[in-house]
Amino acid sequence: MRLQSDAVIGILGGGQLGRMLALAAARLGHRCHVLAPETESSAFDVVRRGTRADYTDEEALARFAEDCDVVTYEFENVPDRAARFLSSRLPVRPDPRALGTTQDRFREKSFIRGLGFSVPDFLAVDDLDGLKAAVAQIGRPSVLKTRRFGYDGKGQATIRAETDLDEAHAAIGRQPAILEAFVPFDCEVSVVVARSLSGEVAAYDVTRNEHENHILRRSIVPAGVSPAVEEEALSIAREIAVGLDYVGVMGVEMFVASERGRERVLINEIAPRVHNSGHWTMDACAVSQFEQHIRAILGLPLGDPRRHADVEMTNLLGQDVENLSAIMAARNTAVHLYGKMAVRPGRKMGHVNRLKPLGA
Amino acid sequence: MRLQSDAVIGILGGGQLGRMLALAAARLGHRCHVLAPETESSAFDVVRRGTRADYTDEEALARFAEDCDVVTYEFENVPDRAARFLSSRLPVRPDPRALGTTQDRFREKSFIRGLGFSVPDFLAVDDLDGLKAAVAQIGRPSVLKTRRFGYDGKGQATIRAETDLDEAHAAIGRQPAILEAFVPFDCEVSVVVARSLSGEVAAYDVTRNEHENHILRRSIVPAGVSPAVEEEALSIAREIAVGLDYVGVMGVEMFVASERGRERVLINEIAPRVHNSGHWTMDACAVSQFEQHIRAILGLPLGDPRRHADVEMTNLLGQDVENLSAIMAARNTAVHLYGKMAVRPGRKMGHVNRLKPLGA
Repeated sequence: MRLQSDAVIGILGGGQLGRMLALAAARLGHRCHVLAPETESSAFDVVRRGTRADYTDEEALARFAEDCDVVTYEFENVPDRAARFLSSRLPVRPDPRALGTTQDRFREKSFIRGLGFSVPDFLAVDDLDGLKAAVAQIGRPSVLKTRRFGYDGKGQATIRAETDLDEAHAAIGRQPAILEAFVPFDCEVSVVVARSLSGEVAAYDVTRNEHENHILRRSIVPAGVSPAVEEEALSIAREIAVGLDYVGVMGVEMFVASERGRERVLINEIAPRVHNSGHWTMDACAVSQFEQHIRAILGLPLGDPRRHADVEMTNLLGQDVENLSAIMAARNTAVHLYGKMAVRPGRKMGHVNRLKPLGA
Repeated sequence: MRLQSDAVIGILGGGQLGRMLALAAARLGHRCHVLAPETESSAFDVVRRGTRADYTDEEALARFAEDCDVVTYEFENVPDRAARFLSSRLPVRPDPRALGTTQDRFREKSFIRGLGFSVPDFLAVDDLDGLKAAVAQIGRPSVLKTRRFGYDGKGQATIRAETDLDEAHAAIGRQPAILEAFVPFDCEVSVVVARSLSGEVAAYDVTRNEHENHILRRSIVPAGVSPAVEEEALSIAREIAVGLDYVGVMGVEMFVASERGRERVLINEIAPRVHNSGHWTMDACAVSQFEQHIRAILGLPLGDPRRHADVEMTNLLGQDVENLSAIMAARNTAVHLYGKMAVRPGRKMGHVNRLKPLGA
């Protein structure tokens, strides 16, 4: 294997996260091979080799494995079978077991609770009767979420006072689900954390996140939370990475809630991959989350995660990209565009990092 | 043409500068096509399309032109015929006329002097008799340099007190040359400057450069020169860009010399391309010299060139890349490697930017 230099890194998934991983690998001198089923995958444009194939195509996966030294992925919904097929042939990092835990909301929340951390109350929901029983116990408002394949608010239904439970169950396709207590939070924060092959852990600073229509709009660093919350959030992320025996970068999303005047940190979700709320690291840290992930999966030392500037990251959604001139000329502002051809409302087209130098 | 978005950018040359141009273009969502003759061109690994062809292969150049919206280059020795062939088909930026001026040391220095700036004394040398006459006028020590195709000290011979002129003339292959007065300088500085399609000019901060064996080893910002020298160096670079009607990024190398207690800035050389002494901009500015060049040739607004951190750039030469662990783990340190397979003594393998945040 050539994991220290000149490695060929396989990336499952060809969206913007795969693209930015490939660009970070290139900065370290490595070559990448992207495998993705979509014809329009902008990550193909920045790598030495691209394979358009379905994740179930084992012939294509075998050729892909042959060409690569290590495989990683840009998204948490890699089919378990593909991950296991590949990991019988070459290192897959993070390990498919971390995927198994985080792909299923019930297993994920049980795992987090097992580490001694707080999550909103939750119950498994297998069918309509189960939903009724869960609502009776957890109450309203609450949120029904599919156990698998949810992202950006997809696969979710809010159970309000007036909600018909059968309709809500139908709305999520009557899939295996969980019911989660609604948490009236003060703010949402996240921590992007890396763990290396040798067990070294490095967490980036806590980020405060603002969503619009369930899609991340803005990430702000410093997060403006109390030192106690900051420290708790960081140690939660670190301990989850250790608990999963994780190798690579992951995002941990959390709610900060006030309860009888006391702040509490509850964990919302683990994303076993580079994370949108870590895009600010591309310009405010010497080593971005993307490079950190590449370092981790190659067995290289992690970079120092401390930021050299305060920063605000704003996602460019849909038609935001049509008039960038003023943003491009602004001071201390870095623009990143993902090379997607079609503009659709709400589609993540790029992002902007506005830096505020620490001494300024 | 699609110069504002989704452009395909053609790059002549497949070395590290072409590679970093392609990575910067990718960050803005654009796709690149690299044409280079060398089999081992690491820029091929990060672009949508690569063409291995000689610059004299007009069939390949025609296909390349067909695929691209605009063409640029990573090096100043693009054959004039290739540049003119392409510019009859699509925009070539910077314009081949700028290449014509800077490819020939005699024309270059005459042009600079014509703008009213200082260069070391120089005379054209066509043959051995011309060399003798030039040495009689300029004196020793002086430096004999080929008019064309010199870089990193190649194509140069120093004329010292004891140097045999016929041997020196043979050492540079008896090519058309210039003889240049030797300048006992205090330090070498450079300015990387950009000019946009609309005539906007943006100069990065002055950089102090340290060479080893004629190869750049270190670039330091701030340069530590007096405010007067700083201002003079910046205005020289700006006026040269305007004088050449230049579009893109260029590097202007200068000497700072003391003469009877007064500091003088003399221009050493213009590089009509992104420049090694501007690599620090990749981590200390929101918009790097590479992105600035891409913006300029696409007709986009230039980015603000002010730095958000002090910085020291060190080239990784040859075997420097064999033990990077300590550097990779250092605080505020960004590592860039060029993906070159063969390590040779003195070969530019990568570089490191050490940031010093302004407030720190």
